[in-house]
Amino acid sequence: MQTTNNPKETLYPHVSVDCVLLGIHDEQLCVLLTERRDAGTDRTEYKLPGSLIYETEDLDDAAYRILNEATGLKRVPLKQFRSFGSPRRTANKEDVLWLENASKLKIGRIITVAYLALCKVKRLKISDRYGPAQWTPIARLPRLPFDHEEIIAAAVREIRVWLDMEPSIVFDYLPQLFTVSQLRRTYEIIYNRNIDVRNFHKKMNSLGYVVQTDETEQGMPHRSARFYRFDKKEYHRMRNKLNTI
Amino acid sequence: MQTTNNPKETLYPHVSVDCVLLGIHDEQLCVLLTERRDAGTDRTEYKLPGSLIYETEDLDDAAYRILNEATGLKRVPLKQFRSFGSPRRTANKEDVLWLENASKLKIGRIITVAYLALCKVKRLKISDRYGPAQWTPIARLPRLPFDHEEIIAAAVREIRVWLDMEPSIVFDYLPQLFTVSQLRRTYEIIYNRNIDVRNFHKKMNSLGYVVQTDETEQGMPHRSARFYRFDKKEYHRMRNKLNTI
Repeated sequence: MQTTNNPKETLYPHVSVDCVLLGIHDEQLCVLLTERRDAGTDRTEYKLPGSLIYETEDLDDAAYRILNEATGLKRVPLKQFRSFGSPRRTANKEDVLWLENASKLKIGRIITVAYLALCKVKRLKISDRYGPAQWTPIARLPRLPFDHEEIIAAAVREIRVWLDMEPSIVFDYLPQLFTVSQLRRTYEIIYNRNIDVRNFHKKMNSLGYVVQTDETEQGMPHRSARFYRFDKKEYHRMRNKLNTI
Repeated sequence: MQTTNNPKETLYPHVSVDCVLLGIHDEQLCVLLTERRDAGTDRTEYKLPGSLIYETEDLDDAAYRILNEATGLKRVPLKQFRSFGSPRRTANKEDVLWLENASKLKIGRIITVAYLALCKVKRLKISDRYGPAQWTPIARLPRLPFDHEEIIAAAVREIRVWLDMEPSIVFDYLPQLFTVSQLRRTYEIIYNRNIDVRNFHKKMNSLGYVVQTDETEQGMPHRSARFYRFDKKEYHRMRNKLNTI
């Protein structure tokens, strides 16, 4: 048993890892949710793929275990982006009860370490442990347990900051050859706002590192759009111009 | 008491917060260390300012409490940068024993949430709880407990990534008017490498957002160096040129 001379110090927090996988599907920014099986009810509820960490597991190991168990995926590069530890995370008794049933542990407070990936994957295996995982539009999230909504909102902000800091990231997400409107739509979806078509076209032509190719879209009903490509070398040359050393 | 049907799941990890305050003192990149009081010995040992989190405390609150208790400071903007949770953090029995004495808790595993600031502050109050805090050169760290060396190394890498991503940060750290060699030295110290004086001068003159002023250093024994200033507006204009939207 544990004793303490400082009642303010926490004795029994638990530590979990949650994974926020973001992707674009059907022209919407989506997050991957897994089913939460509620014993005793036939309701289907959803949550971020996550789990308490195991005794001998480092945080990154837990994140990749969860990714793999929930989606069958292994190679998505997960990035730890923030830990969430408000004592109010477990304010909802129903969430606590569910976790106590699932884990067979008495749950007081949980600190969760959140991981993030922007990924292109579409097809997912159905998990034995988590049930079917599904891409759910950020704009139409169901009721989620704990602070999962807040974690998702923070992940979306984080992705936008990455893109502001390092605009080249968006090209990892696009095919090698892309149209101006594909690029614009990707931005519109990630930033959740409309971008003026003419201004965007002008801006893109002035960028220098988005280069027009000779190829055009094939078999489109409307006038074929031209394909562009990302010039990584020129991008880094420009980036270097901004850097002091 | 707690029971579990899954022996792999951790029952009793503890959660702490550690603060990495980096600063430049005597031309060296330094980290703020506090004294670790070892009951029963007269050795003085050092550690990052840190503490287990309190029962009702969010992570950010714990970080600012520690900052204030250890340094008397309140307004340094701390940024959560990573959590460290390797089971090997508590591999050294001596560290565990010290923490058990200090906390009166039985310590198994500790996950720590690390915060970071690059700060200009020089004078620090002596803390009742932590003893005197001191700026210690990164290049000459004493033996540190747990994985504090790894946490400091990660914080230094993080600061360099911030500077690569957003070169303007360095100017928060410099006086409003600075010389070329002050700017160069700041980079040399943060990146821990020599920078060619001529190349740096050339690069700086080509940047556009580092602007020469009419003022020069006063009362220097050598030829007075010219002062420069940071042109924030021009910087953001250039940054915007790189951005797609």
